[in-house]
Amino acid sequence: MRQPIIGVMGPGEQATVEHVQQAYHLGQCIATAGWIVLTGGRNVGVMDAASRGAKSAGGVTVGILPTCDRTILSEAVDIPIFTDMGHARNVINVLSSDVVVACGMGLGTASEVALALKTGKFVILLGATELENAFFKEFSCSRLKLADSVPSAIAQLHQHLSHT
Amino acid sequence: MRQPIIGVMGPGEQATVEHVQQAYHLGQCIATAGWIVLTGGRNVGVMDAASRGAKSAGGVTVGILPTCDRTILSEAVDIPIFTDMGHARNVINVLSSDVVVACGMGLGTASEVALALKTGKFVILLGATELENAFFKEFSCSRLKLADSVPSAIAQLHQHLSHT
Amino acid sequence: MRQPIIGVMGPGEQATVEHVQQAYHLGQCIATAGWIVLTGGRNVGVMDAASRGAKSAGGVTVGILPTCDRTILSEAVDIPIFTDMGHARNVINVLSSDVVVACGMGLGTASEVALALKTGKFVILLGATELENAFFKEFSCSRLKLADSVPSAIAQLHQHLSHT
Amino acid sequence: MRQPIIGVMGPGEQATVEHVQQAYHLGQCIATAGWIVLTGGRNVGVMDAASRGAKSAGGVTVGILPTCDRTILSEAVDIPIFTDMGHARNVINVLSSDVVVACGMGLGTASEVALALKTGKFVILLGATELENAFFKEFSCSRLKLADSVPSAIAQLHQHLSHT
Repeated sequence: MRQPIIGVMGPGEQATVEHVQQAYHLGQCIATAGWIVLTGGRNVGVMDAASRGAKSAGGVTVGILPTCDRTILSEAVDIPIFTDMGHARNVINVLSSDVVVACGMGLGTASEVALALKTGKFVILLGATELENAFFKEFSCSRLKLADSVPSAIAQLHQHLSHT
Repeated sequence: MRQPIIGVMGPGEQATVEHVQQAYHLGQCIATAGWIVLTGGRNVGVMDAASRGAKSAGGVTVGILPTCDRTILSEAVDIPIFTDMGHARNVINVLSSDVVVACGMGLGTASEVALALKTGKFVILLGATELENAFFKEFSCSRLKLADSVPSAIAQLHQHLSHT
Repeated sequence: MRQPIIGVMGPGEQATVEHVQQAYHLGQCIATAGWIVLTGGRNVGVMDAASRGAKSAGGVTVGILPTCDRTILSEAVDIPIFTDMGHARNVINVLSSDVVVACGMGLGTASEVALALKTGKFVILLGATELENAFFKEFSCSRLKLADSVPSAIAQLHQHLSHT
Repeated sequence: MRQPIIGVMGPGEQATVEHVQQAYHLGQCIATAGWIVLTGGRNVGVMDAASRGAKSAGGVTVGILPTCDRTILSEAVDIPIFTDMGHARNVINVLSSDVVVACGMGLGTASEVALALKTGKFVILLGATELENAFFKEFSCSRLKLADSVPSAIAQLHQHLSHT
């Protein structure tokens, strides 16, 4: 049986220290659960932290990169996929994830959450603001879940994956 | 000198009657101003209405389609671009528009507004709700403008295009 | 009725003087026939020449660009489509053309001819070598035609478009 | 250190029995060497056989799929990447591979070989015809190598990877 792939999306250069710490912890817990971590693959922000967290727990990491430039690649990515398609790789991030977890919210992440909901994915917003929650809830989508902590996100991932 | 290209984004099957009427009027006014209308190219919702409005005023219309299936193409599109790239064509919509106007808001449109702001575009939200405005304002972007009517959107387009 | 779109593909920086002259003439004749010229949109080689030729005859030109960098855009392109998808835009070139004409052969052009035949397009190789003809003929495709001059290519375009 | 990724490209439905057997053997040998096999991910032809061969030898397999339809996915792919970008995924196949091996030649494979050479990749044509070799040699590219057997291809992969 194929290992589930959990997409961890979030800001790159704009990520806060808190989001980076949370993403690292999230990556660790995903790897411990035996799941693969998929990110945007760059060596900054949430994507780098989630990949590093996963590797610290012996996990497997996939990175879907926007360019074909190896200098932007996170060292913690095992399997880099070079798209050279800029932001269009956000669509691939989403379609290749069994579940998407957003850790922090920038414009790129917002596009990914929107596309994930649009394409039928289960999405967890980790530590999102009231406004962010309210905005995405407007599209009244039962596949959108909120989590206020990494353990809560992991619990929801377990519950969702056990039903699919 | 090349004609400016105005991207008109908005819901497809989920568009309300009001959004369709507004999109038709917007397309007319864009064409009357001598600008090209660019949409997602399908024969439904805001994209179809904006294209039909533009054609009713003798304008030129470009449609960037998600598939290579001609049966989904709006009859009011002069120049269909078939991407066969699904939602990744949203990125092309945005990058190929000098200005993006969102008329209504669905998940696809939200991804386009987010990517347009991310890639440095000037974006006008036409008739957006308080919540939608607040969400995108959160990213504190001076390139995001609001318009409560088609004439207001057209006035802002004129002002922006005269400065670039 | 929508104007047919003729894709003109060929080398960029590597184009020979002969290919550039042929592409210019081809663009002129396509525009004279009332068809739209679609190219890769850059300001070099066959794509630039075909676009300039079309404009010299009052035609309409579409360019599908690999980046979102306006400095590489041919001045003779009326409608630039910015994909920021690198070589993946070759697929869009092909899918958006009613017929593809290859004028010269480089690796990028070879990928476009292969994809055009793969996706069911009618393809004309203008001035191709014996080897190039033989290679693509190997896939025994009745949609592949040869032309040894611009008038011959135009005659074949007329014949094909009158049957579709 | 990251494991090298070897792209194995070749016909899908049109693959001959010989190409399928060769691809299976090639996949086995790549996995035995400790490298990752990357293919187009579908459950037919060369891509399926190379993935199955790699799994039979305990290897890791990545598949870059043209759609987001799980029913076309090879059971032997560990990490499926769903692009929903049709033939544009061929570009991703090529860019994500450290070396590309073509096993058989169809139009899709021809586009991949052309794009691989265009983007600076080392390419091995396994069991190619004189005509296929001659066509790609025309672009006088020192990165194009021929192999008449799987052991010869593997030897060339070892030699190339030890120099990079």
